[in-house]
Amino acid sequence: MSSFGVRETEKPAVASVAPSSEFEGGARQPPRDAPFYLRSGNEAEIFEQCHKRNLAVALKGPTGCGKTRFVEHMAWHLGRPLITVSCHDDLSATDLLGRYLIRGNETVWQDGPLARAVRMGAICYLDEVMEARQDTIVVIHSLTDHRRILPIDKTGELVPAAPGFQLVISFNPGYQHAFKDLKPSTRQRFVALDFSFPPPEQEAEIVMHESGVDRATGMDLVNLGSRMRDLTDQGLAEVPSTRLLVATGRLIQGGIAPRQACYVGLISPLTDDPAIAAAMRDLVNVVLVD
Amino acid sequence: MSSFGVRETEKPAVASVAPSSEFEGGARQPPRDAPFYLRSGNEAEIFEQCHKRNLAVALKGPTGCGKTRFVEHMAWHLGRPLITVSCHDDLSATDLLGRYLIRGNETVWQDGPLARAVRMGAICYLDEVMEARQDTIVVIHSLTDHRRILPIDKTGELVPAAPGFQLVISFNPGYQHAFKDLKPSTRQRFVALDFSFPPPEQEAEIVMHESGVDRATGMDLVNLGSRMRDLTDQGLAEVPSTRLLVATGRLIQGGIAPRQACYVGLISPLTDDPAIAAAMRDLVNVVLVD
Amino acid sequence: MSSFGVRETEKPAVASVAPSSEFEGGARQPPRDAPFYLRSGNEAEIFEQCHKRNLAVALKGPTGCGKTRFVEHMAWHLGRPLITVSCHDDLSATDLLGRYLIRGNETVWQDGPLARAVRMGAICYLDEVMEARQDTIVVIHSLTDHRRILPIDKTGELVPAAPGFQLVISFNPGYQHAFKDLKPSTRQRFVALDFSFPPPEQEAEIVMHESGVDRATGMDLVNLGSRMRDLTDQGLAEVPSTRLLVATGRLIQGGIAPRQACYVGLISPLTDDPAIAAAMRDLVNVVLVD
Amino acid sequence: MSSFGVRETEKPAVASVAPSSEFEGGARQPPRDAPFYLRSGNEAEIFEQCHKRNLAVALKGPTGCGKTRFVEHMAWHLGRPLITVSCHDDLSATDLLGRYLIRGNETVWQDGPLARAVRMGAICYLDEVMEARQDTIVVIHSLTDHRRILPIDKTGELVPAAPGFQLVISFNPGYQHAFKDLKPSTRQRFVALDFSFPPPEQEAEIVMHESGVDRATGMDLVNLGSRMRDLTDQGLAEVPSTRLLVATGRLIQGGIAPRQACYVGLISPLTDDPAIAAAMRDLVNVVLVD
Amino acid sequence: MSSFGVRETEKPAVASVAPSSEFEGGARQPPRDAPFYLRSGNEAEIFEQCHKRNLAVALKGPTGCGKTRFVEHMAWHLGRPLITVSCHDDLSATDLLGRYLIRGNETVWQDGPLARAVRMGAICYLDEVMEARQDTIVVIHSLTDHRRILPIDKTGELVPAAPGFQLVISFNPGYQHAFKDLKPSTRQRFVALDFSFPPPEQEAEIVMHESGVDRATGMDLVNLGSRMRDLTDQGLAEVPSTRLLVATGRLIQGGIAPRQACYVGLISPLTDDPAIAAAMRDLVNVVLVD
Amino acid sequence: MSSFGVRETEKPAVASVAPSSEFEGGARQPPRDAPFYLRSGNEAEIFEQCHKRNLAVALKGPTGCGKTRFVEHMAWHLGRPLITVSCHDDLSATDLLGRYLIRGNETVWQDGPLARAVRMGAICYLDEVMEARQDTIVVIHSLTDHRRILPIDKTGELVPAAPGFQLVISFNPGYQHAFKDLKPSTRQRFVALDFSFPPPEQEAEIVMHESGVDRATGMDLVNLGSRMRDLTDQGLAEVPSTRLLVATGRLIQGGIAPRQACYVGLISPLTDDPAIAAAMRDLVNVVLVD
Repeated sequence: MSSFGVRETEKPAVASVAPSSEFEGGARQPPRDAPFYLRSGNEAEIFEQCHKRNLAVALKGPTGCGKTRFVEHMAWHLGRPLITVSCHDDLSATDLLGRYLIRGNETVWQDGPLARAVRMGAICYLDEVMEARQDTIVVIHSLTDHRRILPIDKTGELVPAAPGFQLVISFNPGYQHAFKDLKPSTRQRFVALDFSFPPPEQEAEIVMHESGVDRATGMDLVNLGSRMRDLTDQGLAEVPSTRLLVATGRLIQGGIAPRQACYVGLISPLTDDPAIAAAMRDLVNVVLVD
Repeated sequence: MSSFGVRETEKPAVASVAPSSEFEGGARQPPRDAPFYLRSGNEAEIFEQCHKRNLAVALKGPTGCGKTRFVEHMAWHLGRPLITVSCHDDLSATDLLGRYLIRGNETVWQDGPLARAVRMGAICYLDEVMEARQDTIVVIHSLTDHRRILPIDKTGELVPAAPGFQLVISFNPGYQHAFKDLKPSTRQRFVALDFSFPPPEQEAEIVMHESGVDRATGMDLVNLGSRMRDLTDQGLAEVPSTRLLVATGRLIQGGIAPRQACYVGLISPLTDDPAIAAAMRDLVNVVLVD
Repeated sequence: MSSFGVRETEKPAVASVAPSSEFEGGARQPPRDAPFYLRSGNEAEIFEQCHKRNLAVALKGPTGCGKTRFVEHMAWHLGRPLITVSCHDDLSATDLLGRYLIRGNETVWQDGPLARAVRMGAICYLDEVMEARQDTIVVIHSLTDHRRILPIDKTGELVPAAPGFQLVISFNPGYQHAFKDLKPSTRQRFVALDFSFPPPEQEAEIVMHESGVDRATGMDLVNLGSRMRDLTDQGLAEVPSTRLLVATGRLIQGGIAPRQACYVGLISPLTDDPAIAAAMRDLVNVVLVD
Repeated sequence: MSSFGVRETEKPAVASVAPSSEFEGGARQPPRDAPFYLRSGNEAEIFEQCHKRNLAVALKGPTGCGKTRFVEHMAWHLGRPLITVSCHDDLSATDLLGRYLIRGNETVWQDGPLARAVRMGAICYLDEVMEARQDTIVVIHSLTDHRRILPIDKTGELVPAAPGFQLVISFNPGYQHAFKDLKPSTRQRFVALDFSFPPPEQEAEIVMHESGVDRATGMDLVNLGSRMRDLTDQGLAEVPSTRLLVATGRLIQGGIAPRQACYVGLISPLTDDPAIAAAMRDLVNVVLVD
Repeated sequence: MSSFGVRETEKPAVASVAPSSEFEGGARQPPRDAPFYLRSGNEAEIFEQCHKRNLAVALKGPTGCGKTRFVEHMAWHLGRPLITVSCHDDLSATDLLGRYLIRGNETVWQDGPLARAVRMGAICYLDEVMEARQDTIVVIHSLTDHRRILPIDKTGELVPAAPGFQLVISFNPGYQHAFKDLKPSTRQRFVALDFSFPPPEQEAEIVMHESGVDRATGMDLVNLGSRMRDLTDQGLAEVPSTRLLVATGRLIQGGIAPRQACYVGLISPLTDDPAIAAAMRDLVNVVLVD
Repeated sequence: MSSFGVRETEKPAVASVAPSSEFEGGARQPPRDAPFYLRSGNEAEIFEQCHKRNLAVALKGPTGCGKTRFVEHMAWHLGRPLITVSCHDDLSATDLLGRYLIRGNETVWQDGPLARAVRMGAICYLDEVMEARQDTIVVIHSLTDHRRILPIDKTGELVPAAPGFQLVISFNPGYQHAFKDLKPSTRQRFVALDFSFPPPEQEAEIVMHESGVDRATGMDLVNLGSRMRDLTDQGLAEVPSTRLLVATGRLIQGGIAPRQACYVGLISPLTDDPAIAAAMRDLVNVVLVD
């Protein structure tokens, strides 16, 4: 089973799209039904071994290819709560750890999402971690080596990670971040799983399942998406995700003419450049011949 | 109906100008009368399908072409409250989500406009979203995929979007933002509608309706605006909007001489450059021959 | 009267200098006597039409040419209170809108100057608006289109502009702002009036009236100012304003020798460059032959 | 008396050095004895006229040439309190205007130095005003034209300047400020007095008076200082001030060998560059031949 | 034993990997059992002498080579508590020294980790000190010379270091920090110990001990790691640490196929570059021949 | 004694190393025993004259050459308390002047170190003053001219300097500060004393005294240090200080082999560059022939 884990030559892990799971962010218990996820390799087995052996995991891959779904699926599978944090430029260590709040005459401590996850043994998922500031990222260092401990300076606490706690991060290696990157000393703290778009048939199945279109339309959309993904050489900043194909399918299912659905659901979201838009419309006209 | 949605070749959506609607910003109910809006394509149908199928919408187009009016029209049409946020450089996630305020001896939480919209199922319109900081934009991620949930870290809440909630953003793709752009991973979360100025006859109708001038003057102003829109090659930063034509019409209707109304209502607002101003005055003298 | 409104070819509006008016900044009522202002074109008529028809106004022109006086004059004429805000780099939206203050055990809201103006239907004058930050400027957007409403996020209010409210801004188009400029989407929200220095006779009259010098001295000073205004090609950053001519006149009236009064009142304030200062002194020696 | 006010050709104003005056910063009354100041031109007459006629004054000149002494002298002469503010990068408008402080359960307003000066009719001296941020400088605009009013947004007050209030600023036009400069619209609000070092005999008198050295040593030091002032072409960032000559004289008076006193009192303070220091020592050896 | 201390020619110190020690961050007492650490030179003797003679110590070396383990080992050996601080961009002096907190109606001082360490005579370990801001680093100056004192401005205290206090810092000299570096005046305050990866046999022993793999697999992994460490010339930002080899061994021990374990445990964490990844996979295929 | 004060040609002042003095930072009284300091020129006489005649002093010189010891010595000699402030990037004027603290229901003012020194007539030593922000440095202006007064805006106080107060600053003129430098107008407020390393015999005496090594070892270390100080042309950022020689001597005295002591005590602290480290080890091998 050597095909998994290197993006450009093997079949990548696939995060299929499931009925909306309410499984995220707070200390919620797993939902009754598993989030729909089609495993494509042994990414789940590796994740499970990492969880069992206290190894943190990094999910690498493009926008909208299913990383979030995968971690929801695994949290359900492992029976652990999932706490998700969307990272951004202004996310500080305080946001993760917690802060003192004044309530009436008292100052009360309120755990941040990372501290909550550490105490309850949840899976903590830092989505798009490259966007966060360095202090956010350094905070996780002592949680991702043999120490498994979260120091909270403001309370003077050293919180040991409860059994079952696991740190998961995601990032898109295709982005150009002039001034941002994960430091090597951070990267070495994670086992890394590569994600990519699913193979055509599987992607068509997802589009059909999520949007309700028939197989012919689903295949057309996947075919179109696949050809648009070759346009990056012509200046397309990011290729269309499975999520965009689903959105376009929903518009078609709602009665919007297929070509126009592609214009507003696939082309306009991806580019403001007239030349690229024209090339994409040509593709639409070629693929959607009806 | 394939003409809609690609800006440079088809007839664009038109946001006509309606009697001032007080329909915005708080949790107000829709007004009794619909905001005046002339549909030019099936932009309303697409918007409606997006609203029904939980798809977020991006409105792309130049200043003053009617994007705000369109969203007011659709909110009225769909019977949803509309909450508008004008984005800017200093708009933080806190401004959108809410904050704790000290009132006497108590700390009370006050929802920001996005949190209010999520709880009440309103349409939340982020106007000129490119101006906002990254943390503002990342906050909307979990609202624009299958999760439809707003995490508020400071209260520890996970607010599910009430039925009817929809996120709408607008931006002007013509601006040059050296350091600002929507990340591809954000853009892929929206169906995008392209807006442009209305065709001449329709624009003249709007100018007449809004300013009270007669048809000849309305056509003159539209004719003038249309010729000025060709001056971008000569250094005009932005072309005159329908809004400027209306303002000029109002001055004429108020007794100001037409040429002078054009000077102060069309030329001086658009440029400080003497050469461009001279070219624009020549146009005024040519078009307004009386 | 087509001569008004385009700066380089017609007679510009003139803000004459009046006895010190205490008409500004708070919610004061208009003074008993009109601020002294000599109208030079129909700038007042245009302003009045804008006020009547809910159009915001931008005053464009060099330092000290009378923009502030003009708006004081118009506020008196229209019988509206005038609230002035001097814009600068650190002026935030909060400064304009208001803030919560802690008073004893209570938190009370205090309107900022813009909110006060909106509630009372005052004329709100943002002086040198280009200096302000973007968030200040975006705040005014919903006040300058059909909505005429001020959203105050911190209180959750949507304040409709009281009748009589009008927004007026001023800026000096001659400045070079490497990183600052009004966005086109902001400029298109204003009717723009161009101001320049008054014609010689009128300027001499102002200098005499304000400083008490006789006609010969007044004409000499205006003559001198006018010749200095031709020195911009030689590196003078800004030409002498009417205000500087008045200050120099006052020194002469106070017994300071005319040439020295020109040195300290006209030359040294305008330049630190020895070569430009020498050229300016030559002008003084030529014009003040006595 | 046309010689005053243009720096490079006439005799400049001289700020002589007086016995330490405790006349500054708070609302103190003038001292019994006048600060020692030798007038060199009619700078005092001009200042007095400006004070009488509500004109603000700018003092231009190099470090340590007596600008501060001059304003102390004039405040004493005019019988007005003097409030001095040393400007710097972080000086904000709040620092000048005042702030709310929490005292026990109450919030009390505390005037800043500018507000105090405005209320009491003091002379407010902003030393090295170019160092301040733009918002500091804009705050003074309404105090330096016909309005003579200080708006304090935080209290909602419009404080009229009490009779006798005068704004005085100082700056050194020789500095290179890549990103800082007074805006022309600010400069035009001041009558400007040029200061320079006193002529040799007068400077020697000051050095003798302030340090206690005899006339020969005083003349030697002034001679030395004067020759060092020619070294700017060789890279000396700033020439020695009268203040440095006085300090060196005091060391000599305290028994330090003259040459060494010059090394530590004149050379080492001015440069870290070995070549310039060597050139300066050569000058010392030439001038101090004993 | 002259071989220690210069990285490129002698045998470096080795921080072996021990059973997880809970010995860090707060004022905890040393654990009963010594953290497992195999000494490779006399780094422990030097550290002990430094501790005895009040000399601060800097640990230099790549990520994951055992610096943290070494300081844990020495703290245990010397019987001192260990307080660790992970440094980052936003770590301020306040974070180290402490802050006032409001608790009900009282303001209480809370020592930061450095102040705690100084008072109790602990070893304070600033991990990755180069990441911290200058003010953090300057704070330690008076603790690292003859003064051994920590001034806390906010409380007005001068805290003398308790006997046994020692400051230890670590950094990775291989990083390129365009704008960050320790100032020479800071570096001169430390005795510096160079760390590197252990020799192959010792590293294999560590991998076996920590992951449970057999000797053949351990040797394979070390062999692989060693060959990957030669790839830095081809653009690998950082070489694989002993920690990564252990993580990979754990995956293999958990039943993941060895090659795939290497893909996700060694290659994907280290690079996003397809060419480098391919070169690394070739190495895997060569070394893991089974 | 004309040899003092110019760094490159005369014997510099020497700050010898004394038994640890606890004489710093708060309002402590001088210790019973004088800090050990060997005067090398008449730097003490000059300092004393400056103290007597209200002249501020700047100490210029490289890291670890004894500037701090000198000021401790002089404070003891003059019988004044010494308050030291280590300057850094984030040191604000507030840190020097003081701040309001909330204690229970009251707001109390707490003097900063500079205010304390001014009130009690202490010597205030701003170490590495170039690191501080401009607002810190401007705060000292009124203390370093004839005014000798500290304005504290926040309390509205004008604190006159108590007799005995003296301001002393230090900086290392060898550093390259791209964006930082003392302004000339600040430099001119100080008499400046140049410091350098002591002559060999004196330095050896210090090393012996401080580390306990015998004369031969002391001479070897000084010889080594002196030769390393010639390596700056080869890229050494800063030469070894006397402090480093003492640290190395202590390691040798603790039984560490001399060469290894030099590796960890002299070479590794100074450079991460393999080539420079190799050159330094060659020097060690040459000088330490045993």
